[in-house]
Amino acid sequence: MAKFDSNRSTAPIIREIGFSNPAIAVVRKILTSGAKPYDTQCVLDGYWALAKAADAKMPIHSFFFCDEFIESETALALKQRYLGLAEECYSVSAKTFEKLSDRDDPCGMIAVADFPQYVPDDLKKEPILVIMEHLETPGNIGTILRTCDGAGIHGALAVNQKVRFTHPKLIKGSMGAAFSVPMASFATVSECKKWLVDNGYHVYLADTRAKKSLGELTYQFPAALVCGSERYGISPEWLDGHENLIKIPMRGTGDSLNVGVAASIFLYDMAVQLYR
Amino acid sequence: MAKFDSNRSTAPIIREIGFSNPAIAVVRKILTSGAKPYDTQCVLDGYWALAKAADAKMPIHSFFFCDEFIESETALALKQRYLGLAEECYSVSAKTFEKLSDRDDPCGMIAVADFPQYVPDDLKKEPILVIMEHLETPGNIGTILRTCDGAGIHGALAVNQKVRFTHPKLIKGSMGAAFSVPMASFATVSECKKWLVDNGYHVYLADTRAKKSLGELTYQFPAALVCGSERYGISPEWLDGHENLIKIPMRGTGDSLNVGVAASIFLYDMAVQLYR
Repeated sequence: MAKFDSNRSTAPIIREIGFSNPAIAVVRKILTSGAKPYDTQCVLDGYWALAKAADAKMPIHSFFFCDEFIESETALALKQRYLGLAEECYSVSAKTFEKLSDRDDPCGMIAVADFPQYVPDDLKKEPILVIMEHLETPGNIGTILRTCDGAGIHGALAVNQKVRFTHPKLIKGSMGAAFSVPMASFATVSECKKWLVDNGYHVYLADTRAKKSLGELTYQFPAALVCGSERYGISPEWLDGHENLIKIPMRGTGDSLNVGVAASIFLYDMAVQLYR
Repeated sequence: MAKFDSNRSTAPIIREIGFSNPAIAVVRKILTSGAKPYDTQCVLDGYWALAKAADAKMPIHSFFFCDEFIESETALALKQRYLGLAEECYSVSAKTFEKLSDRDDPCGMIAVADFPQYVPDDLKKEPILVIMEHLETPGNIGTILRTCDGAGIHGALAVNQKVRFTHPKLIKGSMGAAFSVPMASFATVSECKKWLVDNGYHVYLADTRAKKSLGELTYQFPAALVCGSERYGISPEWLDGHENLIKIPMRGTGDSLNVGVAASIFLYDMAVQLYR
């Protein structure tokens, strides 16, 4: 009998189910809808997502697997781990699994987990925060979170949020960093700005109109980097006459970088100075 | 009569064609195939690609437009520009256009152009080069090119090339930088390495095993940054006992960044030192 890393003392009950089972419907609703209550749960699809969510000790509701796809020892070990962690375990056919998974290389396992929930005040002691205003592309948010995780930045705030944190493409793009970097949101720029000022943050606005460029920037901490929307940049409400505008020099034919790339360059520049 | 920015003195001949026309077949072959002769031409799909290719003075073979999608003054001006530049001009129906374009927001214009061709020796005077070894994701190459354009880096070399430079997703990801950053390729690492040494380059290998990290790096120019494949990193052939390994510190749960993001961080770090 395999060992499980839960404190469950008995073997899990595994039910064989088909595509029409209500448990499958929950997975599909989380994947396609952002409506409550499906914005507090996320789908773990793929080896990395499953491993990182288990490492982050996220509560696992349901676990779906198809043995036809589970071959390597690593995969088998992950399956055993999830059989121990999940409240409900389901065995599905290859056909059902392929309809459920978004991946070209299905790993044979999918789970539904509680997504970590934070409010802004949980992040107020962090030396560096990234503010994502009105970002519309889930992959860009995923990129920023992956960089936060790498750079040692433990907080991201969404303002005028357009993409739910549990969006499958956000989670995929973050390579699991969505589970390790605390995220919270503000409805408006003015609320976010007030909170940042009240908590002593030095606010840096990424904006192509800036006079100061990468390479000549000295940050004061705690620091908040504000990145604006892919289409419109930062909104005018951020500008109050004593703002810190910063830019990345653009020497070629393009007038901007992708927001995920630009944020990553600034965040590592900040982290280099913080952790020096 | 509208003015054209070509030296054509007469109005262009515009033919109305349907989806089965051989001119359309050429577009589709370039989009889906990398085979000769379709690796020397590229498809311009979308406003940015068309504008940048015209700015880069790339020879335009054929131009397809659908007036139903062309509304703004900017779009109309671009259409007039292409009617002047293209050897052949075709009017197509909305249905045909939508089958041809990959975009969710079709701009109503598509063109076929000669893609700029370079050999490595064209790049040998550049102070910074990026080497892309065995990269498999067109979007990652596009990201790196967009960063090169922004950072003022005028050369990219592919080694063990897996994606043709004319791949639609590469061009889209580059936001037109694929037309302004010269690219050439080497078949093997050993040929590339010999060429770099012969041309006096200091070679920097991005590798997580490095001892030296971002923030403590001083580059010597001319410098070449080597980025390895998404799955395997740089190949062992690069290591010769006196290599310069460099890394980006990873302080979280992830063990690497996306290769496009990592390359962008290093390339701007190099550019900051070069252009200081």
